[in-house]
Amino acid sequence: MSVPSKVTDYIAQNEAAFVKRLSDAVAIPSVSGDAAYRQDVFKMADWIKNELTALGVTVNFKDLGKQVLDGQTIQLPPAILASIGSDANKPTVLLYAHYDVQPALKSDGWNTEPFELVFDEKNDRYYGRGSTDDKGPLIGWINVLEAHVKTGTELPVNLKFCFEGMEESGSEGLDELILEESKPGKFLHGVDCVCISDNYWLNTRTPCLTYGLRGLSYFKLTISGPARDLHSGVFGGTVHEPMTDLITLMSKLVTPDAKILIPGVYELVAPLTPQEKALYDALDYGISDVEQSAGAKIALSDDKIKVLMGRMREPSLSLHGIEGAFYSPGAKTVIPASVAGKFSLRLVPNQTPDKIEQLVKAYVTSEFQKLNSKNKMELEHLHGGEPWVDDPNHWNFQAAKRATEAVYKKTPDFTREGGSIPITISFSRALNVSVVLLPMGRGDDGAHSTNEKLDRSNYLKGTQLLGTYLWEVANKK
Amino acid sequence: MSVPSKVTDYIAQNEAAFVKRLSDAVAIPSVSGDAAYRQDVFKMADWIKNELTALGVTVNFKDLGKQVLDGQTIQLPPAILASIGSDANKPTVLLYAHYDVQPALKSDGWNTEPFELVFDEKNDRYYGRGSTDDKGPLIGWINVLEAHVKTGTELPVNLKFCFEGMEESGSEGLDELILEESKPGKFLHGVDCVCISDNYWLNTRTPCLTYGLRGLSYFKLTISGPARDLHSGVFGGTVHEPMTDLITLMSKLVTPDAKILIPGVYELVAPLTPQEKALYDALDYGISDVEQSAGAKIALSDDKIKVLMGRMREPSLSLHGIEGAFYSPGAKTVIPASVAGKFSLRLVPNQTPDKIEQLVKAYVTSEFQKLNSKNKMELEHLHGGEPWVDDPNHWNFQAAKRATEAVYKKTPDFTREGGSIPITISFSRALNVSVVLLPMGRGDDGAHSTNEKLDRSNYLKGTQLLGTYLWEVANKK
Repeated sequence: MSVPSKVTDYIAQNEAAFVKRLSDAVAIPSVSGDAAYRQDVFKMADWIKNELTALGVTVNFKDLGKQVLDGQTIQLPPAILASIGSDANKPTVLLYAHYDVQPALKSDGWNTEPFELVFDEKNDRYYGRGSTDDKGPLIGWINVLEAHVKTGTELPVNLKFCFEGMEESGSEGLDELILEESKPGKFLHGVDCVCISDNYWLNTRTPCLTYGLRGLSYFKLTISGPARDLHSGVFGGTVHEPMTDLITLMSKLVTPDAKILIPGVYELVAPLTPQEKALYDALDYGISDVEQSAGAKIALSDDKIKVLMGRMREPSLSLHGIEGAFYSPGAKTVIPASVAGKFSLRLVPNQTPDKIEQLVKAYVTSEFQKLNSKNKMELEHLHGGEPWVDDPNHWNFQAAKRATEAVYKKTPDFTREGGSIPITISFSRALNVSVVLLPMGRGDDGAHSTNEKLDRSNYLKGTQLLGTYLWEVANKK
Repeated sequence: MSVPSKVTDYIAQNEAAFVKRLSDAVAIPSVSGDAAYRQDVFKMADWIKNELTALGVTVNFKDLGKQVLDGQTIQLPPAILASIGSDANKPTVLLYAHYDVQPALKSDGWNTEPFELVFDEKNDRYYGRGSTDDKGPLIGWINVLEAHVKTGTELPVNLKFCFEGMEESGSEGLDELILEESKPGKFLHGVDCVCISDNYWLNTRTPCLTYGLRGLSYFKLTISGPARDLHSGVFGGTVHEPMTDLITLMSKLVTPDAKILIPGVYELVAPLTPQEKALYDALDYGISDVEQSAGAKIALSDDKIKVLMGRMREPSLSLHGIEGAFYSPGAKTVIPASVAGKFSLRLVPNQTPDKIEQLVKAYVTSEFQKLNSKNKMELEHLHGGEPWVDDPNHWNFQAAKRATEAVYKKTPDFTREGGSIPITISFSRALNVSVVLLPMGRGDDGAHSTNEKLDRSNYLKGTQLLGTYLWEVANKK
């Protein structure tokens, strides 16, 4: 089974209507992080409901309760749970996207009005908040549905949709909903695979499929000594200074060449298989891409594989800053009374936040004891998130691969991302099925930045990709 | 020659008038750091001029020019240069004090109105901004003058006064004036010794004479890498992180037991003589005093001498903070693009800011090279101040010692302070004579804090002390 040409032809011939649809969606400023825009988030939910309903989809709004934002108690936008098809002979695919966006003001540095989809003819791209994150992909699915309905083509799979309106603001309430709806007899139960279109290619050239994300363990290490800040002239050389203890401890966490010094951390890392190694070899991504994104020639190595693995399959430890110390410009001769270093580890399988917390606590406690300091030390694990890796050989991924090859005439990069997309883990755990991250946009789309954009070809080919994926996944092999 | 009893009797019998005088001075809110109070600083200068003139002193205001404060260009308060007596057979003593004060608002946490001298009968002390810093001592000199004039007693020395109105705000313009006025034929030329009453006893029990102050070298160590802040998920493990480099370098400056790791720093320290060591042994000051001031049991050693020498005659290095890193509460997963560590060394003879800067630059540069980092490092010496030590056996100090013994029936502590009083160095260098720091107040006066106070006995005995000192110094032996 492969995607019928009437479907792909319809998509190719209806660019104007699809752009109009995206334009209408971008015009609704559904900013979830600002109470002033909450009505627009609801408006966006209604807009999606209308679109889906018109195409024969059954749509339910799930009330996620209330939240406190900007000092007001306000209603959370609904999770949109929708479905079409219930043929027991077809696989059931769950599609996730989000309909809220990051804040944007023209005065932030936008060249165009952020909530107006503006075509840049020279670069063949569309500017607008949400164009790539995540309204473009969400509407891609609607376009695909329309192409089937308008051409009288039966969908090759049963579809379920989970579209949320709080992704940019912590996905409040969604985890609980997913757990609840995954129970036997509930909406998500029996889903065969999940497809999330909410990330980006590694670069601007090659499509990718993402099969892994790093987890996180974030720590706050507090050293307290004197009852108040002290003058370094009066007390320097007489007392244990908390900053000296803290800096000493922080220096024992990671080396300048990024080696983590906490014993046991690397022992938990799953061994590299030749198959996985081959995926890094094949990636269309190099040192120069990393350095271009960073804006400086500061890659840790000249070995591409080492740098890519450093981001995708190795843990890392970053020192973020210090709370309580002197941070302003100028010269203040203070001995701060209590200082808290912030650092976090990015986790990879088979690391877990629980195991990492144990290792970090044991190590930091032991290193602090070695200092023989009379100050007090406290280590807090502020939050943690599990890493996630899926099987890139699963039929779900192979379907996405074939679809990419059909549309782009290119083998996609199989990537793991360094950051987190928590919803991925939520689905993976609750449903215990394969989750593929199938991005529409490019690495330079500027998702959370000013002048967010989606290339015209990514929107149109991306829509073809999503449609083709549904037909390939129907083969389940 | 010793102070005549009619002078000391006059002081003992005129407490009410002296308190009235201090009360009048405290009522003028001569805050130099706030443009809104500048007229009050001038008012304070006029008040002093009237007091001195009434007692036969010749008073000149020295215009120090203008400054920019709070966005306004305003006139600096004058330096008050005044003198009485020009007998070639008498030594000439220069007295320094300042007539400006730190800001104070009742809402800062004062129990009483800060610009009202309030007597606390229970504790036998006076509360008020400037009571101890430095209006009490300044008025002490005026009281002493009055006691001589009103009893028809000829002063045993020639007196010169340098009273400034910008001490709490960087003593703007004063250094240049001192240099200029120290030239042959000018006002300060030919001064035999200097007495500054603007510091405090070590404790609340024993008067002290201060013969040394530490200097300062303040550094800013900047590490820059990426062109902008990076996301630790995306970049952690792929690039050289400026924070890791900075923390590593800062950890190589000083150990948790306060040993400075910069080679050459200790080699510059003047050796300890048995005479100097004996002064520390004799001090009425211990570990518990240090820990009480710090508010915690965090002294570096249980050895009193070691702790005292750590403050008074050893260099120290404090890490103050980091500019450019994450410093707020919460958990931000940022890799800061450019971070600047602030640290400073307190210097002792024979260290100088110039020599220390060389040592620090050489060491930090060499340590940074060892990191093999692709980030950039810059070290700036933000400012420096020379250390100062005078000879406690000089007749100027011995006179202050005899005066203290006469008034307090106690041998004073001979102390060196850990911080800086830059004016001391200015006089010492420009005039090349002995400078004694002869405090009036106690270690718990809270000079720059809320509820600044001066004990009644310190004000009255302090006035006796200043008067007695003039007679002892007249002996010049």
